[in-house]
Amino acid sequence: MNSRRDFLQKIAGSALALPVLSSFAPRELMQADETPYQGPVLRVAILGLGSYGERVAEAMKDCKRAKLVGVISGTPSKVKTWQAKYGIPEKNCYNYENYDQIKNNPDIDAVYVITPNGLHKEQSIRVAKAGKHVICEKPMAVNAKEAQEMVDACKAAKVKLLIGYRMHFEPKTLEIIRQRKAGEFGKVLFFQGLSGFIIGDPTQWRLNKKLAGGGAMMDIGVYSINGSRYMIGEDPIWVTAQETKNNPQKFKEGVDETIQFQLGFPGGAVASCLSTYSMNNLDRFFLNGDKGFAEMAPSTGYGPIKGRTNKGELEYPHVTHQTVQMDEMSDIILQGKQPIVPVDGEEGLKDMKIVDGIFLAVQTGKKVDLKL
Amino acid sequence: MNSRRDFLQKIAGSALALPVLSSFAPRELMQADETPYQGPVLRVAILGLGSYGERVAEAMKDCKRAKLVGVISGTPSKVKTWQAKYGIPEKNCYNYENYDQIKNNPDIDAVYVITPNGLHKEQSIRVAKAGKHVICEKPMAVNAKEAQEMVDACKAAKVKLLIGYRMHFEPKTLEIIRQRKAGEFGKVLFFQGLSGFIIGDPTQWRLNKKLAGGGAMMDIGVYSINGSRYMIGEDPIWVTAQETKNNPQKFKEGVDETIQFQLGFPGGAVASCLSTYSMNNLDRFFLNGDKGFAEMAPSTGYGPIKGRTNKGELEYPHVTHQTVQMDEMSDIILQGKQPIVPVDGEEGLKDMKIVDGIFLAVQTGKKVDLKL
Repeated sequence: MNSRRDFLQKIAGSALALPVLSSFAPRELMQADETPYQGPVLRVAILGLGSYGERVAEAMKDCKRAKLVGVISGTPSKVKTWQAKYGIPEKNCYNYENYDQIKNNPDIDAVYVITPNGLHKEQSIRVAKAGKHVICEKPMAVNAKEAQEMVDACKAAKVKLLIGYRMHFEPKTLEIIRQRKAGEFGKVLFFQGLSGFIIGDPTQWRLNKKLAGGGAMMDIGVYSINGSRYMIGEDPIWVTAQETKNNPQKFKEGVDETIQFQLGFPGGAVASCLSTYSMNNLDRFFLNGDKGFAEMAPSTGYGPIKGRTNKGELEYPHVTHQTVQMDEMSDIILQGKQPIVPVDGEEGLKDMKIVDGIFLAVQTGKKVDLKL
Repeated sequence: MNSRRDFLQKIAGSALALPVLSSFAPRELMQADETPYQGPVLRVAILGLGSYGERVAEAMKDCKRAKLVGVISGTPSKVKTWQAKYGIPEKNCYNYENYDQIKNNPDIDAVYVITPNGLHKEQSIRVAKAGKHVICEKPMAVNAKEAQEMVDACKAAKVKLLIGYRMHFEPKTLEIIRQRKAGEFGKVLFFQGLSGFIIGDPTQWRLNKKLAGGGAMMDIGVYSINGSRYMIGEDPIWVTAQETKNNPQKFKEGVDETIQFQLGFPGGAVASCLSTYSMNNLDRFFLNGDKGFAEMAPSTGYGPIKGRTNKGELEYPHVTHQTVQMDEMSDIILQGKQPIVPVDGEEGLKDMKIVDGIFLAVQTGKKVDLKL
């Protein structure tokens, strides 16, 4: 049983996607009754055909402004299956030896890297050097040094680098951010992020230090890290952290089971977060100001997200996160659109600097100053 | 506006007290249709006639096994008012100069000390030396050293010392503790306590270091400290803590505004808590195990408490906490009853040791080992 996938998809798909009329509503939802979309379309190849890659491919079937056109995989049988399933032409199929040749393929604009974290850096840089825009799944790398190299390589290659932050396009999340910016919670003073689930198969790559770069923090803790920043609207200036390991057989050296961490923000807010691979029922955000609060539970699963504020429930309908993400990323890459919450390499780099800070704080037992 | 009182009583009294049939139901609720109670009655004097003292006095009107019979106050006009209101005879009225004479009064069994924290130690020890049982409001003192002196003095005087832990008798709290003991949440791994409100009048004693012994931690943070112990069912072995002060005018040296603290427990559970005087909407407990969870919000206000578990809402009716507390304390003092969660001086001392640890962790920036 893949408990991670279960966790994230448990309630996905149980709500209908209904039109949303709002200033930030994804465009396709507003065009339900309009003429077919005729603008630019981002042509995407997926690198890494695992379960999350397949989720993205499925979601992209409903995209208007992005299209899955290619694959990169080390497993020929997977490539065949995907070709049949998604109508991918032979000329857009690559393996891990030859995908630098993608530079000669004018029919692919961007590559979405969806592989184990430890492979992101090398693969993203190869894609950049092939002149294609890079979309890299989170966490973008296993530490800030790698993330910085990726940012630098994409700049040098003059391609865009986006990180797979699907929550940055989620309607309830964006509505809470809008309300926070409008001052509806007053002065924001506290964020809480609880991120965790009980991970299954002990042999999976997510529990392999070399491939994952860590444990729960890399996979699920980053939601609380990233969430603290977009919910509070600032970057933290210090971090403290405490690790607990109850099962050292399952969670080996360098693979974190449970970490609590606390962040301090320049405006005086604090964040209190939990990252764990040993508990379910943890997918909760809570934002508190001196005039009101917002609460999300589930806050980052594949949906539907549930959100409420001191004024009541948020009623936005569920949208498939990855569909909206890929349509919006098309606009960002092809049309220079500025997202409400950044999804670029610098944004991902900030999270990696915080991850580094958390691991250092665990190791030293001391407060670590952050310079994002 | 007394925002503290507002916070705690906001929703008190809005629910009816209905009979509860359960193994831990307060006795009077089970006797609604039975013959009047004829057993022993604890005769109580209240020392300190402030707003919380009055709340206790009002609640005691409904007690069956405890009765308010005396007062100790430095304000003669208050004594007169209370005498009239609660029918207290002149011979049971004392002031701060003469209350050692209570030792010669056979009509008073116990004194409930409800004064600023900084006065608890001296007053409790005087009561003990007068041969009366001591009930002391929480926090029992301003540090563990004082608390230990109180425990020792009561032992030496052969009187009982109980701390005003009203939540230890609250039905939903006890039901969650019962379920946790029965293993219904599986292995307990995480507790979260959020305790806070925006405090009003900056001149009140609760913001005076000498009288309060600290700030939010002494007043409201102790709910999370104590709650972590009775919800998890263990005593912590380490603590880390981080202080944030945004308003040093209002929260002077030694008066904490906001402190986050984390506790580690011998069974591998961790607790993540927040104590603050600068935010409302914080009265939440969350207990998580590998098989289920419990959530309480509000968790420690005067009620009604709201609780739910992974199986659904807890439907116990509201009872006035202080009524149940005083009836149960009567049984503890007069009949040697063992409460489900201890309320004795040793229990209070443990919380004070944790408070000391938190302040030390804030000061040193280091993890502090606890020896409770």
